[in-house]
Amino acid sequence: MWGQQRYIAVDWGTTNRRAWLIDPTHGKLESYADNQGLLSVPKGGFEVSASDLRSRFGDYPMLLAGMVGSDKGWHQVPYKSCPTDLADLAKGIFWMQGGSIGIVPGVCQIDGNADVMRGEEVQAFGALQLGTVAADGLVCHPGTHSKWVRLQDGLIAGVQTMMTGEIFSLLRRDSVLSSQMQNEPAANHSFDEGVDLALNGAHLLSSLFQVRSQYLLSTRELDGASFASGLLIGSDVRAGLAAGHPRDMIAIVGNQQLSTLYLRAFERARFRAHIVNDDDAFVAGMQAIVDHLRVVQENAS
Amino acid sequence: MWGQQRYIAVDWGTTNRRAWLIDPTHGKLESYADNQGLLSVPKGGFEVSASDLRSRFGDYPMLLAGMVGSDKGWHQVPYKSCPTDLADLAKGIFWMQGGSIGIVPGVCQIDGNADVMRGEEVQAFGALQLGTVAADGLVCHPGTHSKWVRLQDGLIAGVQTMMTGEIFSLLRRDSVLSSQMQNEPAANHSFDEGVDLALNGAHLLSSLFQVRSQYLLSTRELDGASFASGLLIGSDVRAGLAAGHPRDMIAIVGNQQLSTLYLRAFERARFRAHIVNDDDAFVAGMQAIVDHLRVVQENAS
Repeated sequence: MWGQQRYIAVDWGTTNRRAWLIDPTHGKLESYADNQGLLSVPKGGFEVSASDLRSRFGDYPMLLAGMVGSDKGWHQVPYKSCPTDLADLAKGIFWMQGGSIGIVPGVCQIDGNADVMRGEEVQAFGALQLGTVAADGLVCHPGTHSKWVRLQDGLIAGVQTMMTGEIFSLLRRDSVLSSQMQNEPAANHSFDEGVDLALNGAHLLSSLFQVRSQYLLSTRELDGASFASGLLIGSDVRAGLAAGHPRDMIAIVGNQQLSTLYLRAFERARFRAHIVNDDDAFVAGMQAIVDHLRVVQENAS
Repeated sequence: MWGQQRYIAVDWGTTNRRAWLIDPTHGKLESYADNQGLLSVPKGGFEVSASDLRSRFGDYPMLLAGMVGSDKGWHQVPYKSCPTDLADLAKGIFWMQGGSIGIVPGVCQIDGNADVMRGEEVQAFGALQLGTVAADGLVCHPGTHSKWVRLQDGLIAGVQTMMTGEIFSLLRRDSVLSSQMQNEPAANHSFDEGVDLALNGAHLLSSLFQVRSQYLLSTRELDGASFASGLLIGSDVRAGLAAGHPRDMIAIVGNQQLSTLYLRAFERARFRAHIVNDDDAFVAGMQAIVDHLRVVQENAS
């Protein structure tokens, strides 16, 4: 029965997957990560790929979330539309293999700007569960696509996606700016300069070209990668704060390196924010869903 | 002597080159275009590539402009910094082969935001020469990088570059939006929708993702390429108008297809603009420089 026995929680994304063996009482027992994201799983190969995780952890039930529930994943699970809560997510789980494997649905926004997410909803509820964000708080998930999740009375009320990370990668890999963008972006003076420009409403399409013109004119030293990163993250933060009706304290849920850059941008914007480890938030969210499943099962029996 | 004999004018860019045989009295006699831009010329191969043009048109003096004068071109010619006029450009020409081949310098902006251009300055002066833009007018050059050129008393007073076209190409070729962006962008309803959003200050990083979320949620038909193009061009036009102290009438100097999209965006922004053929503007600008060379030579003799 869910909530009484060990289970395997999997954050299964496009590029990577991370898995944990979880004991409802003692929490995380083991963890495992590899690059067997959707792009690396051959057609029809998800069953084998999931069995592989079971052979590592033991033959426990599995709860999956993330892009594994998308049209490019194992099975497409319909989005829950916001406002939505944990009970909605639990109800929307798609069960396979006699109920021993479930995929948690993503969340969509229909009203206003159409938007979607898969995986971040679990992290957002997890951050709430951990007490790291208020029931009316704002959660910023940096990443290839950053996701801004608005909470309201403990429900997910809205989501907004920004293509920040992807555009940074495209510019770095294959644009006229590439050769000036090969450093790892860091929270240095060039980064701050980009953030400040963006926070003051500078135009992105134009400001990005500064990376090239400053280089050509050699007017001064500019760390192109950090400057461009600052412009993009600053622009992201500016729009996210404007759209998200900023609250007292913002939770940044993401990996350490990227979260640190966002934290700096929030500081420049004079907003209080703090970093929540994305794995911790994910595991807490999955456990909250499992707790909910247990209650439902108890009430039914 | 320049201004009395025929010459070959070449707009030599990164990807393409276009050349014209020009008679100072009768104007364009012949034209030729190929894809022998900088990227296709082997190291040390510019002399041969230029000879090839002479073998087509005859052994006339040549005047070159565009990226051929950049660090990646035949010879790096220092920028003239604005404010700058035709006389400055003529003075800055780098002469080779005993004065039978010259490269016109580009223009840079040092004050305010650093910026640069090579080739558009010739077109801007050409548009002025043709009477298609006022001496205090604003010229918008759409392209991989769009360039906004501010004229003041017939001088080039400022330039602003936007990475509009390049970001569109990157998104179309290799992003999560690619499969929804394979149409040729057109001035249709989706384009207008993108333009209007951008003109109203919508956030680019977020609005672009609509291409994907509208597709996933199938809420309605959206031509992704035209919508994204509208967002980017609308954003470009909004910033260009804001920075350029908009005048009564704006000249769009570019190829027909792209210029038509910009014209539509100006219409949505309720600004009067008109399209000037980029080749005509270039040839007129080169002829104006040649006229200037003639006067200088006459005064010197």
